[in-house]
Amino acid sequence: MKKSLTVIALLFLFLACSEKSNLNAIKVNNPDELTKAIDSAKAGDNIVLANGIWKDVQIKFRGKGTKDNPITISAETPGKVTIEGQSYLKFGGEYLVVEGLYFKNGFSPSNAVIDFKIGHKDAPDEISNNCKVSNCVIEDFNKPKRDDSDLWVQFWGRHNELSNSYIAGKTNRGPTVRVSIAGIESINNYHQIINNHFGPRPVKGGPSGETIQLGDSYTSMSPSHTTVANNLFEECNGEVEVISSKTNFNVFKNNVFYKSEGSLVTRHGNYVSVDGNYFIGDGVNENYGGIRIINTGHWVVNNYFYGLKGKSFRSPLAVMNGIPKSPLNRYNQVTDVVVAYNTYVNCASPWQFGVGQNLAQSDVLPKSEIRSARAIRTTVANNIVYNEKGLESIVVENDKADGVTFKNNIINNQGVKFKDFDGGITEASLELRPLTDNIFIPVGIPDDFEAFEGFDFNTIETDLLGVSRKEDKSIGAITGKNVSNPNILDKTKYGASWYSNEVEAREPVTHVVTKAEELQTKLNEASNGDIIALSAGVYTVNESLVVNKSITIQSEGKAQLVYAGLANTPLFSLQPYGKLTVNNVVLKGNDSNYAFASLKENMSNHFGLTVTNTEISNFNYVLKAYKESFAERITFENTSISNCENGIELSEEKNDKGDYNTEYLTINSCNFDNVKQNVVDYYRGGYDESTIGGNLLVTNSTFTNCGAKEKNKRLLNHNGIINVNITKNTFKNNAVQFVSILWGAKNNVESENSITNSGQLKTEENLVMKLMY
Amino acid sequence: MKKSLTVIALLFLFLACSEKSNLNAIKVNNPDELTKAIDSAKAGDNIVLANGIWKDVQIKFRGKGTKDNPITISAETPGKVTIEGQSYLKFGGEYLVVEGLYFKNGFSPSNAVIDFKIGHKDAPDEISNNCKVSNCVIEDFNKPKRDDSDLWVQFWGRHNELSNSYIAGKTNRGPTVRVSIAGIESINNYHQIINNHFGPRPVKGGPSGETIQLGDSYTSMSPSHTTVANNLFEECNGEVEVISSKTNFNVFKNNVFYKSEGSLVTRHGNYVSVDGNYFIGDGVNENYGGIRIINTGHWVVNNYFYGLKGKSFRSPLAVMNGIPKSPLNRYNQVTDVVVAYNTYVNCASPWQFGVGQNLAQSDVLPKSEIRSARAIRTTVANNIVYNEKGLESIVVENDKADGVTFKNNIINNQGVKFKDFDGGITEASLELRPLTDNIFIPVGIPDDFEAFEGFDFNTIETDLLGVSRKEDKSIGAITGKNVSNPNILDKTKYGASWYSNEVEAREPVTHVVTKAEELQTKLNEASNGDIIALSAGVYTVNESLVVNKSITIQSEGKAQLVYAGLANTPLFSLQPYGKLTVNNVVLKGNDSNYAFASLKENMSNHFGLTVTNTEISNFNYVLKAYKESFAERITFENTSISNCENGIELSEEKNDKGDYNTEYLTINSCNFDNVKQNVVDYYRGGYDESTIGGNLLVTNSTFTNCGAKEKNKRLLNHNGIINVNITKNTFKNNAVQFVSILWGAKNNVESENSITNSGQLKTEENLVMKLMY
Repeated sequence: MKKSLTVIALLFLFLACSEKSNLNAIKVNNPDELTKAIDSAKAGDNIVLANGIWKDVQIKFRGKGTKDNPITISAETPGKVTIEGQSYLKFGGEYLVVEGLYFKNGFSPSNAVIDFKIGHKDAPDEISNNCKVSNCVIEDFNKPKRDDSDLWVQFWGRHNELSNSYIAGKTNRGPTVRVSIAGIESINNYHQIINNHFGPRPVKGGPSGETIQLGDSYTSMSPSHTTVANNLFEECNGEVEVISSKTNFNVFKNNVFYKSEGSLVTRHGNYVSVDGNYFIGDGVNENYGGIRIINTGHWVVNNYFYGLKGKSFRSPLAVMNGIPKSPLNRYNQVTDVVVAYNTYVNCASPWQFGVGQNLAQSDVLPKSEIRSARAIRTTVANNIVYNEKGLESIVVENDKADGVTFKNNIINNQGVKFKDFDGGITEASLELRPLTDNIFIPVGIPDDFEAFEGFDFNTIETDLLGVSRKEDKSIGAITGKNVSNPNILDKTKYGASWYSNEVEAREPVTHVVTKAEELQTKLNEASNGDIIALSAGVYTVNESLVVNKSITIQSEGKAQLVYAGLANTPLFSLQPYGKLTVNNVVLKGNDSNYAFASLKENMSNHFGLTVTNTEISNFNYVLKAYKESFAERITFENTSISNCENGIELSEEKNDKGDYNTEYLTINSCNFDNVKQNVVDYYRGGYDESTIGGNLLVTNSTFTNCGAKEKNKRLLNHNGIINVNITKNTFKNNAVQFVSILWGAKNNVESENSITNSGQLKTEENLVMKLMY
Repeated sequence: MKKSLTVIALLFLFLACSEKSNLNAIKVNNPDELTKAIDSAKAGDNIVLANGIWKDVQIKFRGKGTKDNPITISAETPGKVTIEGQSYLKFGGEYLVVEGLYFKNGFSPSNAVIDFKIGHKDAPDEISNNCKVSNCVIEDFNKPKRDDSDLWVQFWGRHNELSNSYIAGKTNRGPTVRVSIAGIESINNYHQIINNHFGPRPVKGGPSGETIQLGDSYTSMSPSHTTVANNLFEECNGEVEVISSKTNFNVFKNNVFYKSEGSLVTRHGNYVSVDGNYFIGDGVNENYGGIRIINTGHWVVNNYFYGLKGKSFRSPLAVMNGIPKSPLNRYNQVTDVVVAYNTYVNCASPWQFGVGQNLAQSDVLPKSEIRSARAIRTTVANNIVYNEKGLESIVVENDKADGVTFKNNIINNQGVKFKDFDGGITEASLELRPLTDNIFIPVGIPDDFEAFEGFDFNTIETDLLGVSRKEDKSIGAITGKNVSNPNILDKTKYGASWYSNEVEAREPVTHVVTKAEELQTKLNEASNGDIIALSAGVYTVNESLVVNKSITIQSEGKAQLVYAGLANTPLFSLQPYGKLTVNNVVLKGNDSNYAFASLKENMSNHFGLTVTNTEISNFNYVLKAYKESFAERITFENTSISNCENGIELSEEKNDKGDYNTEYLTINSCNFDNVKQNVVDYYRGGYDESTIGGNLLVTNSTFTNCGAKEKNKRLLNHNGIINVNITKNTFKNNAVQFVSILWGAKNNVESENSITNSGQLKTEENLVMKLMY
């Protein structure tokens, strides 16, 4: 009897609950109905958007719910309500919830896609508190122009939440998510950014491509208390900072950084906790970062680093030098930082100190840019480092680490000697105990080795897996007791319940083309990844071919594409998403038109270009990338380029704000003959110490009779590009003064080049650049 | 029966308590015994110092008490144990208490008199927590040299307390009390500085004379949470900052600033609460300050300002301009500040904004010194201003106050028109309802006038007198309900129970002197304030007369003092505490010796000099003030100075750190004839925007045949002196190029001077100075 009563009671409760969510359901079918429903919504109401496409819908969600009875806007079926066109969602109230929406095929006409305030010019802003976005997706919701800045989620107010959402594909300027705290209404905000899946954010090619930014330098003195926890950051490659923390007392806990080309950076602000996060690399890519530390009072504990090959700014732990009496927006000295109980497995450079030390650049930089203040009052204790191959330096000292106290750290360095910092780092023979593919627990620490008891270390209560550290003397991220697999790469744990970014592999389809007229038609019909196979012969093309997907154009018998289009138009128009591979063809112009070009504007997504085994001749430009266009990779291989007025032109980002047009420009085994100017012109301007792009590789190629019209008398122009490698090339009879001028202070190198009657290949240590900040 | 049981129980409790404090009493008679007692002390022990003088006692108080059973060091009789000579007290432990000690007649050989840590060079410092100094006095415990910096109380660690103590008379460099928070052991410290009486701290004559300093610029990002409450600050005149708050989240509550020549300044750090303090002036002195605001997030509420005549940096409310992207140690912009529910009665300039704006000095200062960033996101609401005489500007805008929102403020401006900031300041006819001598409640606000409800204003729970603001719509510091006299100037409420700084007035004694030999003897016998009366005649003095107290030397018949002492020795040696008045005598040297001079070193306390109706001639120097000596006032009146090689020399502070040798140099109705160089040489060097001294007044005087040997060709030298007034003088036949060069940007003025054959009197707007910071 008692049991059945319980059952009935439970049933009743269940009905009550499920009823509750439907009780006040108000279904709406269009923006007008939505606006009306919002206007009259009361606490407990659930406004349900009918499935379908909602275009150009600008939602101002005003209302006053309560903790127990919020006002909700939800999708009829989560994921089946798409918000498209020029749309946004702004909150202005208390206890408001939005669930299940899918933002795609559009962009916000405002400064944010989702904003936790409704701003006004001449009246106080309506700032939200206790509001929530959950189970939503924002995908490729980019402004058409890369330089037009926006945010996809902007926090204001207090106690707001972004949870269980998938957000990916931002290419335009601006952090994906920002917590803004200007104004007392938004300090001590305790916002929650939890359980989200931050999917791929492609390289932006310049600054302002963070995935999460908390505050800015102007509010960096304010207490924020934002929590970023249990999120998956997958391929968040926008720029060097995946997360840029710029306020105080933020908490980063149990996040997974998976193959993300950037770091969690305490850029401004102080007293941040970075506790129990996973940084997973692939053992190869040097761009995957870890934690970069600036400022005061941070605690970096219980973190796990695996297979990270980054160095300097992208080291697993990069502790920067500060600027003495730093300006507000530059680099304060590192003080009072604790790095404890972390585990590093097979990382190339686990600990770097004095990162950013630039005393050598005192001649070209003002005193207020010289990072000479070393970390002080900093403790590194109870960490474990396991290296399958011993490292020469466990601690890389870009500047002396004399203000750092090392205590009770253990390393397996395969017997390779290292500086032990007064015994603070001890060698031990460890083994790796596998927990999953990429989580290994180093075991074999001597029984009598005990953790260092640092000041307030008792506040580190649990390990990476949440196991209590009470009565435990072990070191490293994992105590080894009560171990369970955290399944960190199980994507169902993160993001929207109804969405997966895993794409099933698909075999490419080959579309055979035999006549010029078929070309554009087949390009239109082809799906992403397909192949256009040209039969042998000559194809005269009169209008630009539009490329707006991943496509390969190839022939077996070196088909010839002769472009007869207008002057200054391209044979291939590389449009957003257009990633073109050209293989084994001949491309010929009329001396006034182009082989390849981006759109002049509205390049809302990246293009790409790979040219192999191809002959290119008689164009005005081989490639013209316009301002605000960006390609992750541009590659020319086994290709000849001859009798062109201009070569590869990627130099329109002249505003010196750190932007550039491609991340990787690779020229291998190519033959340049009689290209009169801009043979290679690749530009990045603006002093930004943390930039690590772009990348120019010129190898095994021959340049003959090129550069005659080049005004600055340089054959290869790559001003401000950080990584340049010019190797095993032949330069012959080029009427220039310099083959190239390399930037010695950065990663610009050359070797084994043969230079005949082509001027010099020179290295200048320092480059004078415009200050960006 | 029940009643008597209670009585017995209470009696028992009383015995238990009183017994407890004696139970573990360990009496010690000398430093050795004290050290031993400390070494063996256990929780609950009370080490009792025998009454008497304890000389050269350097106490390292190590121990581990508990909350309920601290270890105590106390005086046998509070105040009867004097700590003298080279002594200090350092804490190193937990729950340690020191009570009843009297520090005087000495100084600390260390960097602090009382220190809450025991420092070590090669080992971690012993930092104290939960320790307390109470019911103690520190008086005139000055290092011998002014430039030798120390602190009298230095806080480290957490939860330490300075309470019910009297501290006064610091003259050497360094804040009286400092809370140091470098290191994670000392952040979030919640120290208590409560119920103290900070007695007079004389003008230091340069920076680093704060009464309380909380942190420094290098730790200004750290959370401190120090409380400074219920203290009396009486004549704390050390420098422009009585309290310099340089960390975050400090609380200043219910303090009384009484005739203190300086301000409570939020110099660095943010989110400080200044709540319910009294700033009491005299309606005359322009040096008494109020609250000066820099940085972000401060709340200035419930404060009462009376009779303050300060302007600019010393306004009751001085909101400064910041430097854009300020260096760490300069001026951040003011943002997010709230100024609410304050009352200003008869203040000369209640509100100033843009204080420190110095765009006009762009030519002589680097960009990183230009304060051009105005306050933003700042609210001034619910304040009351009462002016017995209407002011032209209620808000003085040194720069536009366009980032400030004024709401619901009321002013009685006697009908004089003012800018009302969009109606944010309203005139009303108010009356003053007296509560005490210096606390008046403005009444008469219209019934329908209600307080502005700003963001988080509900957190302002009580008024100045502690009365609840709940359900109250009134404005100003005092609601007017349940009013009671807070007796803010009842000194028994502050400081040590056994000490009063009130001195009974005493009639001066006149000591008649008839022979030169008696002079020094009588000077020695005389008490502070006494008079030496010289009979008529000539007194030949062969050795310097020592002046080390307040003394007047006078004659009725113009007695002559002929000084035959050695070259470069003074007739009057002005030593620490030596404040000399010379009236109606003739002073004559031998051309190689001096009339007046300070000690060459160890001027551990100030001197002073007033010379009236006197004839001075044939000295090498009239007055020579050596480095590190300081006089609050030096005055020459109705006095002739003739045939001297040098005049008044106050120019030894050449290190350009902002120091100078006298606060006020006054020359009135004097006659200078044939003074060859350094006629007046008064120097202050180093750029410091907040300095407001020294003061040079030259009036109604005649200068003839002076300055012939002056190397820089200026008759009156006063480099860097802020206030200079040269009025109604006659300059005749002085072989100089300039009578004076005035500093136009500061308060340097001249008028009605007659200049004949004496060069020019010129004004230069800007003075190039060495940057101090």
